[in-house]
Amino acid sequence: MKILGLDSSGLVAGIAIVEDDLLLAEYNVNYKKTHSQTLLPMLDEVRKMIELDMDSIDAIAIASGPGSFTGLRIGSATAKGLGMALDKPLVEVPTLEGLAYNLWGTESLVCPLIDARRNQVYTGIYEFVRENTQEQKIHINIVETQCATDISILIEKLNQLGAKQPGRSVIFLGDGVPVYKEVIAQQIKIPYSFAPAGMNRQCAGSIAALGAVYYAEGRVVSAAEHQPEYLRQSQAERELAEKGQK
Amino acid sequence: MKILGLDSSGLVAGIAIVEDDLLLAEYNVNYKKTHSQTLLPMLDEVRKMIELDMDSIDAIAIASGPGSFTGLRIGSATAKGLGMALDKPLVEVPTLEGLAYNLWGTESLVCPLIDARRNQVYTGIYEFVRENTQEQKIHINIVETQCATDISILIEKLNQLGAKQPGRSVIFLGDGVPVYKEVIAQQIKIPYSFAPAGMNRQCAGSIAALGAVYYAEGRVVSAAEHQPEYLRQSQAERELAEKGQK
Repeated sequence: MKILGLDSSGLVAGIAIVEDDLLLAEYNVNYKKTHSQTLLPMLDEVRKMIELDMDSIDAIAIASGPGSFTGLRIGSATAKGLGMALDKPLVEVPTLEGLAYNLWGTESLVCPLIDARRNQVYTGIYEFVRENTQEQKIHINIVETQCATDISILIEKLNQLGAKQPGRSVIFLGDGVPVYKEVIAQQIKIPYSFAPAGMNRQCAGSIAALGAVYYAEGRVVSAAEHQPEYLRQSQAERELAEKGQK
Repeated sequence: MKILGLDSSGLVAGIAIVEDDLLLAEYNVNYKKTHSQTLLPMLDEVRKMIELDMDSIDAIAIASGPGSFTGLRIGSATAKGLGMALDKPLVEVPTLEGLAYNLWGTESLVCPLIDARRNQVYTGIYEFVRENTQEQKIHINIVETQCATDISILIEKLNQLGAKQPGRSVIFLGDGVPVYKEVIAQQIKIPYSFAPAGMNRQCAGSIAALGAVYYAEGRVVSAAEHQPEYLRQSQAERELAEKGQK
């Protein structure tokens, strides 16, 4: 099974190809260029480097949102275009699940934060559960589905989870961390950590790897069906609604 | 602080640049091309993509071995050349520590395995320890320093560690996993898991990120001083010694 993963939901533009248990290639860039300038050239670069026959791909996994509206549109348009041209299905990997997957294997709660401006974060709460056998397969579990919320409401939820499971800690990651680090320190009551460089931002390898898991579970959509999950209205839509013209 | 990370210790060729808490770019390729064909072109590609001024780098982190002899030589030669040309220090990141760092944040023991042929593995045992404060900084700790050993001796050590800490589990990763999966299943007595695609092989992001930690601790060498750590004699050296000509 070969999965192409794409992520342009935030500042990172990323391309990865996973075949079965192996990452064949991964290219992530966190730089000020717009994704429309980077994503396809990066794919082309990787394709040449590993002599990838695009027809050999089984599905295209896309970080399906939330995130930057423009970034999501570029990523989704790219994934839809590739899916239609190659006649391959898409696997929608919710952005926050993909981000949490960077911390596969931790026993802490995982709480990715994407800065959503206007005092909100896109977030979710995840954990990795182990099968109760000697070989412990480890699966991602959604404790709180991704949503747009106030940071204080999120921290209160984490405090409640910690009250039920004393000693449980949480690891934060994502571009919301530098924005809300001080608020977290003030309000959180459970032990917490911040993920280090190399795993604290979107990463196409996680989208491809988690996409492969979801593909194996049959969670595919057609290129025509796919649309990004914004979770909120865009500024233009909001302003239009406020004017009562909608 | 800006660290360039290089890894060509195994099948993966990888380049990454970390600046403070952020990965600016990462490009890893796991493909049959030789590293002499890939490593510098990949660096050049990344350099152009993020408009990197090579003089702005503080140090070059290199996966310093063990691993493929040819791979290590290509990586070390590249790092030494860059270090001399740019007049920057090198940070030697032991290959197995870099590999273990992929699983930052787990409470399991981490056991990277690199197939060393001749029934041996290059391995080590690592764990991530948390500071006993509410904000828990998480550090890598070496339980067993990297070495070349028989897989059965390694598993016995893990079983002994498990006997002292009931419930402690171990996560294996690296190219030794497909080779020794069945031996592990037969001999191990503690709960175990295998890391998934996306984090189960060498990754330049981990070399750059852990290199940044070691750089901050002052663990640098000059380009002239650096040499790879093979841990074993090469086949040619071994054969020469066996012939009694050395």
